[in-house]
Amino acid sequence: MNIDLHADLGESFGAWTMGADADLLDVVTSANVACGFHAGDPLTMRRTAAAAAARGVTVGAHPAYRDLAGFGRRFLDVAPDELAADVLYQLGALEAACRAAGTRVAYVKPHGALYNAIVHHEAQARAVVEAVAAFDPTLPVLGLPGSAVLREAERAGLRPVIEAFADRAYTPAGTLVSRREPGAVVHDEAEVVARAVRFATEGTVVAQDGSVVRVDPASLCVHGDTPGAARLAAAVRDALAAAGVTVAPFAP
Amino acid sequence: MNIDLHADLGESFGAWTMGADADLLDVVTSANVACGFHAGDPLTMRRTAAAAAARGVTVGAHPAYRDLAGFGRRFLDVAPDELAADVLYQLGALEAACRAAGTRVAYVKPHGALYNAIVHHEAQARAVVEAVAAFDPTLPVLGLPGSAVLREAERAGLRPVIEAFADRAYTPAGTLVSRREPGAVVHDEAEVVARAVRFATEGTVVAQDGSVVRVDPASLCVHGDTPGAARLAAAVRDALAAAGVTVAPFAP
Amino acid sequence: MNIDLHADLGESFGAWTMGADADLLDVVTSANVACGFHAGDPLTMRRTAAAAAARGVTVGAHPAYRDLAGFGRRFLDVAPDELAADVLYQLGALEAACRAAGTRVAYVKPHGALYNAIVHHEAQARAVVEAVAAFDPTLPVLGLPGSAVLREAERAGLRPVIEAFADRAYTPAGTLVSRREPGAVVHDEAEVVARAVRFATEGTVVAQDGSVVRVDPASLCVHGDTPGAARLAAAVRDALAAAGVTVAPFAP
Amino acid sequence: MNIDLHADLGESFGAWTMGADADLLDVVTSANVACGFHAGDPLTMRRTAAAAAARGVTVGAHPAYRDLAGFGRRFLDVAPDELAADVLYQLGALEAACRAAGTRVAYVKPHGALYNAIVHHEAQARAVVEAVAAFDPTLPVLGLPGSAVLREAERAGLRPVIEAFADRAYTPAGTLVSRREPGAVVHDEAEVVARAVRFATEGTVVAQDGSVVRVDPASLCVHGDTPGAARLAAAVRDALAAAGVTVAPFAP
Repeated sequence: MNIDLHADLGESFGAWTMGADADLLDVVTSANVACGFHAGDPLTMRRTAAAAAARGVTVGAHPAYRDLAGFGRRFLDVAPDELAADVLYQLGALEAACRAAGTRVAYVKPHGALYNAIVHHEAQARAVVEAVAAFDPTLPVLGLPGSAVLREAERAGLRPVIEAFADRAYTPAGTLVSRREPGAVVHDEAEVVARAVRFATEGTVVAQDGSVVRVDPASLCVHGDTPGAARLAAAVRDALAAAGVTVAPFAP
Repeated sequence: MNIDLHADLGESFGAWTMGADADLLDVVTSANVACGFHAGDPLTMRRTAAAAAARGVTVGAHPAYRDLAGFGRRFLDVAPDELAADVLYQLGALEAACRAAGTRVAYVKPHGALYNAIVHHEAQARAVVEAVAAFDPTLPVLGLPGSAVLREAERAGLRPVIEAFADRAYTPAGTLVSRREPGAVVHDEAEVVARAVRFATEGTVVAQDGSVVRVDPASLCVHGDTPGAARLAAAVRDALAAAGVTVAPFAP
Repeated sequence: MNIDLHADLGESFGAWTMGADADLLDVVTSANVACGFHAGDPLTMRRTAAAAAARGVTVGAHPAYRDLAGFGRRFLDVAPDELAADVLYQLGALEAACRAAGTRVAYVKPHGALYNAIVHHEAQARAVVEAVAAFDPTLPVLGLPGSAVLREAERAGLRPVIEAFADRAYTPAGTLVSRREPGAVVHDEAEVVARAVRFATEGTVVAQDGSVVRVDPASLCVHGDTPGAARLAAAVRDALAAAGVTVAPFAP
Repeated sequence: MNIDLHADLGESFGAWTMGADADLLDVVTSANVACGFHAGDPLTMRRTAAAAAARGVTVGAHPAYRDLAGFGRRFLDVAPDELAADVLYQLGALEAACRAAGTRVAYVKPHGALYNAIVHHEAQARAVVEAVAAFDPTLPVLGLPGSAVLREAERAGLRPVIEAFADRAYTPAGTLVSRREPGAVVHDEAEVVARAVRFATEGTVVAQDGSVVRVDPASLCVHGDTPGAARLAAAVRDALAAAGVTVAPFAP
């Protein structure tokens, strides 16, 4: 039994800081590093890659729509060829920061509104996959089960990797309950920890209707933008270890 | 006898176009491609890299200060660690566009105000060199003879490459006459062509005071932003061929 | 009988130029001036406002999504309060350029994807109207008949103003035929001129099915981004004069 | 005896927050509000203007170089006509936010590297003054005694206003000791408070060499970006009140 723990990191920009990166880097095994389009100035990228490398944390690219003012959280109806080029650009930019730090981009997880769009938006999903394939076809793509982007990744010969959220409610179909619905987020820490262990040891989650749904995630997403996030992540990691789960990167 | 001809390319941005890229790509042997900080959106970068690759033109990175509004033509007093990270970011971003096009970044020539600054500004020159060395220490750096950036490149073990301008007046010391002085730019096309041939065959230029100065350039810079630029570049290329000069990239 | 002729102007940005502004300013009676979010750096805005003022051309604001890379042509799912603030910001910025030039912002016409969105998108339409009302409730808003933004403008006590396109095909309902359909754009110049005169003298257009549709525009939109655009605009203006139509700004 | 207390506010941007704005607004009588070029997205500007208006705090514009990535702290060698247009743009944008909030821009204090540059840089100082005069010649300009910008302001018929820093060491000439020198910043809170009272009651400061220098400031600058900043500002305000000083805006 083993599983990866990943978080979004490197989301400061210039004079503005965000996130408890140093604390999270002590807990996670993979770091999605912002690539400059929604957050992450080049110096932050370089320092984040170096900090990850120093701790043996695997680096993944966290590309986004070009939207600093909106932190990449707003859907942008960008044409597929432009989106593919935007993603390619970000992958290369982060790869350079990694190379300087003695590491490399090992996987891709799109950010924010782009992540949400390519659950369903076929053309944008294909564009993201095309960019990854053009950059390095050995890179896994991290996403939700059943998402367009994972289907397209598989079709293109990339490795699709399923992630899960220990603090989000699931539908019986194995998809996330929308944040607009009540109960979408699990706030009780003990329950979050228990769900993380269940994901790792059984590959399942208890859906909102009480049914048990198989998800089989290779990685669990840990949030970093709330107070106490790093502490909760550490509690998850400790519980996983106590349950005999090896916490390790999914990407080679 | 052989020499390289290079020009700045890929300086469109989004809906705005600039330069006669298609015409110039038929003439030059190396292309400095904008990397998104002063010009060059990601799709333009990708298309420019592909067009260069299709014609066998070598691609060089043309990194700049982060200054779209000023086209990278305004000095920015950026700290060395930020500048190094900015350059590293741009190198990686262009490398990704090149990789998707089946080519690679083969050299570096900084753009505009950054290019001018690192003739004298030691700290910024070192920062640029540090970024190139961290990215790929086999990449040559193109610059003016006697410039700080070429000195720093040599010190860091990079290959410094001297370029010359057939349409610019030179001082007896082998530096460019400032554009603010009369006669700084050579407008007569026949003279520009003759100076290009002299650079390639003898490695020298006749300075403003009539003395002959040794420059020994490995590459001649061809401008692309004026009407008739591509035609003048073609005339230079034809004259070089007629003089028995092989026009070929300087970078491997 | 009188009508306004307007065009999009001031869409250069830094080193990149766009449009035949000087020619168009000799033809139109109103100028939609870009406000920096899709195009129009501050110096271009100031010069455009000054050039319009010098010719007695009325200035309107042409606010857009924050999207330089996409020229404001890509839908952005921005929240209403952010959109209202973005529009307000752009109105003020252009007003300052106008004030320095001895003129003022006299109306508002949103640009590109924002213009298209607020034909149907109620929340974004309300946000635009809220911004205009907060800035200056005497400013007319220019748009398509039946659009959400004109309905919201009317509801908020602003003056909705209908514009028409002499080079676009119309449905029997008085809406534009989508550019994706064949025949959406009228290319024959004589026909464009004839349609312009009909709009001005009768307030109607012959729709795609041959029926006559009442539009009653107060202003005709003239394009400036194609070769020959200024010449066609001049032909429209001459024909209007010949038909006894007074070409004059709709905004006071 | 009366004096103004002012601070930099509204320096958040999108998802990134900065400063203890709410706390500072309870202490200061004037707020320099960021205008979007170094910080301050349009919604932040609107909210900051509204919050200031609600508390009766006077709003001043805090224009900067176009440099979000550098927070406006890096000198940019921008041409005077571009700088004037940039400043004009920012003044108008903030005025719109103020107008929507029922207040207005009442003075101008340039930010960061621009502020520092126009102590000595005549051309940029004139450009800033030209923009203010074009926008509203009744607006005071806040700056250091002896600075180029205050000289140019006076020459242009604007009202120059002197500010002082209670936490900075002064030279016998009445200028600030450079931050690079030891003792440049006064860290002892009691001493900061005492210096503030002395500035307000006597118009003087004890320079580094022990001599008493006349500064006669109309406003004291209060920092907001350090922990405890708002508390220190409140202590200064309380001490001023105890000394019989009326704390009130300098701008009408």
